[in-house]
Amino acid sequence: MLLAPIGSMVALLFAAHLAWKVAKADPGTKEMQDISKAVREGAMAYLYRQYKVILIYGVLMFAVLSLMAYHGIQNWFVPFAFFTGLFFSGLSGYIGMQIATISNCRTTQGVRTSLNRGLRISFSSGAVMGLTVVGLGLLDLSIWFFALKWYYAANPGAVPVGSTAIKEITDVMLNFGIGASSMALFARVGGGIFTKAADVGADLVGKVEAGIPEDDPRNAAVIADNVGDNVGDVAGMGADLYESYVGSIVATMALAITAGYGISGAMVPMLMAGVGVLASIIGTFLVRVKGEDADMKKLLNALRRGIYTSAILIAVLSFFVIRHTTGDMGTYVAIVAGLLAGIIIGFFTEYYTSDAYKPTQAIAKASETGHATVVLEGIANGMMSTAIPVIIVAIATLASYFCAGAWAGGASGGFDFSRFSPSNPKFGEAAAQGLYGVALSAVGMLSTLGITLATDAYGPVADNAGGCAEMCGLGKDVRRKTDALDSLGNTTAATGKGFAIASAALTALALIAAYKDKITALSNLAEINLDILDPTILVAVFIGAMLPFLFCSMTIRAVGRAAGSMIEEVRRQFHKPGVMEGKVKPDYAKCVDISTKAAQKEMMAPAILAIMAPISVGLILGPFAVAGLLVGSLASGFVLAVFMANSGGSWDNAKKFIEDDHYGGKGSQNHKAAVTGDTVGDPFKDTSGPSLNILIKLMSMVSIVFAGLFFVFH
Amino acid sequence: MLLAPIGSMVALLFAAHLAWKVAKADPGTKEMQDISKAVREGAMAYLYRQYKVILIYGVLMFAVLSLMAYHGIQNWFVPFAFFTGLFFSGLSGYIGMQIATISNCRTTQGVRTSLNRGLRISFSSGAVMGLTVVGLGLLDLSIWFFALKWYYAANPGAVPVGSTAIKEITDVMLNFGIGASSMALFARVGGGIFTKAADVGADLVGKVEAGIPEDDPRNAAVIADNVGDNVGDVAGMGADLYESYVGSIVATMALAITAGYGISGAMVPMLMAGVGVLASIIGTFLVRVKGEDADMKKLLNALRRGIYTSAILIAVLSFFVIRHTTGDMGTYVAIVAGLLAGIIIGFFTEYYTSDAYKPTQAIAKASETGHATVVLEGIANGMMSTAIPVIIVAIATLASYFCAGAWAGGASGGFDFSRFSPSNPKFGEAAAQGLYGVALSAVGMLSTLGITLATDAYGPVADNAGGCAEMCGLGKDVRRKTDALDSLGNTTAATGKGFAIASAALTALALIAAYKDKITALSNLAEINLDILDPTILVAVFIGAMLPFLFCSMTIRAVGRAAGSMIEEVRRQFHKPGVMEGKVKPDYAKCVDISTKAAQKEMMAPAILAIMAPISVGLILGPFAVAGLLVGSLASGFVLAVFMANSGGSWDNAKKFIEDDHYGGKGSQNHKAAVTGDTVGDPFKDTSGPSLNILIKLMSMVSIVFAGLFFVFH
Repeated sequence: MLLAPIGSMVALLFAAHLAWKVAKADPGTKEMQDISKAVREGAMAYLYRQYKVILIYGVLMFAVLSLMAYHGIQNWFVPFAFFTGLFFSGLSGYIGMQIATISNCRTTQGVRTSLNRGLRISFSSGAVMGLTVVGLGLLDLSIWFFALKWYYAANPGAVPVGSTAIKEITDVMLNFGIGASSMALFARVGGGIFTKAADVGADLVGKVEAGIPEDDPRNAAVIADNVGDNVGDVAGMGADLYESYVGSIVATMALAITAGYGISGAMVPMLMAGVGVLASIIGTFLVRVKGEDADMKKLLNALRRGIYTSAILIAVLSFFVIRHTTGDMGTYVAIVAGLLAGIIIGFFTEYYTSDAYKPTQAIAKASETGHATVVLEGIANGMMSTAIPVIIVAIATLASYFCAGAWAGGASGGFDFSRFSPSNPKFGEAAAQGLYGVALSAVGMLSTLGITLATDAYGPVADNAGGCAEMCGLGKDVRRKTDALDSLGNTTAATGKGFAIASAALTALALIAAYKDKITALSNLAEINLDILDPTILVAVFIGAMLPFLFCSMTIRAVGRAAGSMIEEVRRQFHKPGVMEGKVKPDYAKCVDISTKAAQKEMMAPAILAIMAPISVGLILGPFAVAGLLVGSLASGFVLAVFMANSGGSWDNAKKFIEDDHYGGKGSQNHKAAVTGDTVGDPFKDTSGPSLNILIKLMSMVSIVFAGLFFVFH
Repeated sequence: MLLAPIGSMVALLFAAHLAWKVAKADPGTKEMQDISKAVREGAMAYLYRQYKVILIYGVLMFAVLSLMAYHGIQNWFVPFAFFTGLFFSGLSGYIGMQIATISNCRTTQGVRTSLNRGLRISFSSGAVMGLTVVGLGLLDLSIWFFALKWYYAANPGAVPVGSTAIKEITDVMLNFGIGASSMALFARVGGGIFTKAADVGADLVGKVEAGIPEDDPRNAAVIADNVGDNVGDVAGMGADLYESYVGSIVATMALAITAGYGISGAMVPMLMAGVGVLASIIGTFLVRVKGEDADMKKLLNALRRGIYTSAILIAVLSFFVIRHTTGDMGTYVAIVAGLLAGIIIGFFTEYYTSDAYKPTQAIAKASETGHATVVLEGIANGMMSTAIPVIIVAIATLASYFCAGAWAGGASGGFDFSRFSPSNPKFGEAAAQGLYGVALSAVGMLSTLGITLATDAYGPVADNAGGCAEMCGLGKDVRRKTDALDSLGNTTAATGKGFAIASAALTALALIAAYKDKITALSNLAEINLDILDPTILVAVFIGAMLPFLFCSMTIRAVGRAAGSMIEEVRRQFHKPGVMEGKVKPDYAKCVDISTKAAQKEMMAPAILAIMAPISVGLILGPFAVAGLLVGSLASGFVLAVFMANSGGSWDNAKKFIEDDHYGGKGSQNHKAAVTGDTVGDPFKDTSGPSLNILIKLMSMVSIVFAGLFFVFH
């Protein structure tokens, strides 16, 4: 039972060890250190301002939650847990950004010694983020779990009539995800706007108008662009997955009690997380390469070796976890289904976005007939790519549900699928067990998070290392190796997005199941019927399906406006005497500031939409309709997120494919058409698409927390 | 009770009268007649080939339906009704195309006399299509209704145990929509591919590469382009709305019986259709203008006068229809809600797509920063525009449901909303009445079809008239007037699409409600519970939400491939000696042939997807899951269709706005960027978007027809 807090501590200690190793690596020349410092300062300025905004939000939300607690429609622990969730998620973002921004130029310097050294430094930086996220997430949950356990043991009267201490604990903890969800909202949406405003601004003026290369130090937005990589893919991605991690665990705990698994069932997700930490740490040791040839396949295999080994370890160890807790082997199938789904979706994401395969090459070819055909082919490719992830999630969900529910008789039992026959008296029990299985498959998918997030957070470090080499004018050999590491980062960014979306979808699914559980309890009915053709629910499904589109529209426009201000500033600075000649340093901080301010301002409207939509529907149409809203949003948001991420990824790689001397190469008309595709794809893949992960999870979390309020009005 | 067949006859006679008037109008010079003839021949060649393909499909489907009838899982009338549905829908397409292709140059000639004469000819042509569709649709249903009534009266033993003759009639008739749905599938998808292959091919080579104006007779694809306008917006749009018209009526009839309204309730949708015919005919008389100044506002007001008058007439007359049949004034609210929703959605469609408003102007402005920002702004605008239609449909649905269900006590009754309290013993009755109300609101929306379809089908005639003027080199004054008529057509095309999508959504909703009714009956249970969180249903919702994306991907690529062959052919013909000098006529028929063949070939895969998806899910996951699939598809398909239609429409108009000397005007870099947007929008608004209407309705219709089969396996 102590595996979870021990796992948490091990994760944090190992992260500290890795951070220490990175910190003592050679920081490079004075020039390199300056660049690193500028990026770090920019990143910290961004975090500082964002956390200030979040603090204001935090105080408001704390007040609302306290008010609800005061009126007895929410537990008094929740406002405080909201704050710890916000704090730990924010802290892991801070640590991740710190380490990422000291690793960038150290990676460049490391590459000068050996390719492996560069890979180790950048990957270790990613691993620090990965292990910090799982470590702090698990720590937060463990602290509360043991504290609540102690509290309810000490105050047996605090448990409401008809409940048990463990049920009360899991019910309260279910609401704890709201802190992580809130942090994720700001980090993902704000980070997405920051990074693309800087990127688009830097590219449009630098590359297109002035004709200077990417990462050229004369471009005022170049530091902002490098900061943006970290802000989006370290802080944003980290907070997103932190939310999924915590959300899936608390939902599974709550469903365990309903399904009658008791405390051992509730502990399973925490234990899985502990096992995942150990497996992830072992995996990180396997990420290393031999030799100095910067071969993509070799590098990719190094990462895959780490991830696959971790996954296999988890598959083996979780067998024993289940064996020694609930003994329900059906839930073991669910865990493996989740693990496998994550890996398969990653593979197909690569197929649809990598230029090694047909779909992306077809986009490059479409550049021959101009801008419009590139755009159309990318959209068609992204839309096509939605089929497989949806079908895989569908299969994983059904397998988890039916296997977990069919298991009868505890540790010595077996599968009995006849329990799902509606006439079977065990049907209700089977259904509840099945939902616990579905939630557990999300936990299974996310158990590799320590290492999968490491491969994601590695990306911006490698990208920045390339920028550092370019800005310092280092030799071709160094640039070749940093390019290879960067290129590897682009691949992991695409597959990481696939993983993030799929895990968000499964987490949201688990949260929606928990929401139904909660409203069933609140309604005082034995069971509630959420008929899909009840017009109130049906209409809510429609509205839910529309929200992701509205949300995307808002975030696309936000990037457009923010990029607009950035473009003006970069242009202005190019006109300052001496800048274009490289004699006068442009004012990097100003551009960072523009992106920072724009990100805070522009994320307001989408954030309000995400929080207010479920509350409004709950108050107007009632708690049952909210279930429809959530399902509608999840269904359309999941598909839209995959579409946008994969369209964006494939446009990006199609452009790079042309730059590798296909279809006319760099500077040709075809290349210009491909750049159009890439620019359209920028907000698709780095702002709107990933923000949808947040939308679908946050709306579910908000609904859970505010469910009590809906019942006051209905 | 004879109002429906009388209405049908009146519609057809009045259509014949209008057709006769158009036919005797001056056909213009020999050159104009030649062009008209070329377009007509092309259109007929297309129809001929398409109907051949449909015949093969028809025989196959007939065999399948007969096989099901043979095994007792479908009624023996259905295969025959399938054929009559196919035939009447096909016939109305044929008549509409005939009249449209004789009106084009007659409109040009008419404009030489007066603007009003041109408007009258082109609008009359549209009215022939509109009235033929409602006339033949109503005729088909009336014939079967009276034939079945006679049959069951003559053979009382043919009614199954526990059923009544009228219930049996409406149950059988519910399946009749499959003929119209099948025709719509081929006409919309095939027509959409044809028209955009020709359009994109003609534009990319003619306007962009060769630099000659639109509709230049030296362009080999120019006739195909003109044929395409008719194929897409006359035959395609007509078949789409024919399907909605028939589908909403049969669904309402079936739901009337379940709700206990008896034969009078079942007759209401037919009577409404009859009333709609009369109102539409009166409306057509009001579409006329005074004076020769081609002012858009004046022209638009002429059309609106017609539509609004018809709508008001229907609102008044349907009061008496309800009063003298069921007496349920709640259903009267439903009819008015549907009518109003159609009009309001039309208004907002105009707001989001017309260059008189901000959204489209913002797209034009985005051209200043290049191709990518035009694309992004258009996408953001389209996504934003989905909110209002969804919310309006939601409000109309809820208003219809609750008002219709709350009415208690027949003609002398009143509203009693407490019936919807779950503890009220009348809850089941209220819910059934409510669903009948929802279906009736679709009928209400579609009751104006005679005149709304007229305004749609008017568009291609006006467009062709402009082409005729251009190709014959007529004077500037004529061109100015035909341009104004064309421009009016563009506006009605956008609002017409909004109307088509909204009515498709409401029709699909009615069909899904009828599907639930049908599977409840087939399951032999008193009531069935389609819980949205039952994993089988939930997973089906996910798959359903994904299908529209997959379908769009297929249709976008189909247009791309077809346009590719067209581009090659046009280029080849430009290189033939004498063509560019205007001495040798290009081979127009060859281009028509390419589009025709491509359309038939490319529509296969999407068609198979649309038909097989519900059948596969029904066989694998069962009939309950199909309900989830349909709701998922409807929710995401509706939103996606609005997004694509409005993005496309606004790109088109942003381009035209720039051509009207804004932001640099024709030929500028900004204009080129806007052309990219327009080209991306072409398959969005004319192929993929409208095809989604078919997807959501057809899948529901297929599910209804094959429901019996699902139960054999589950």
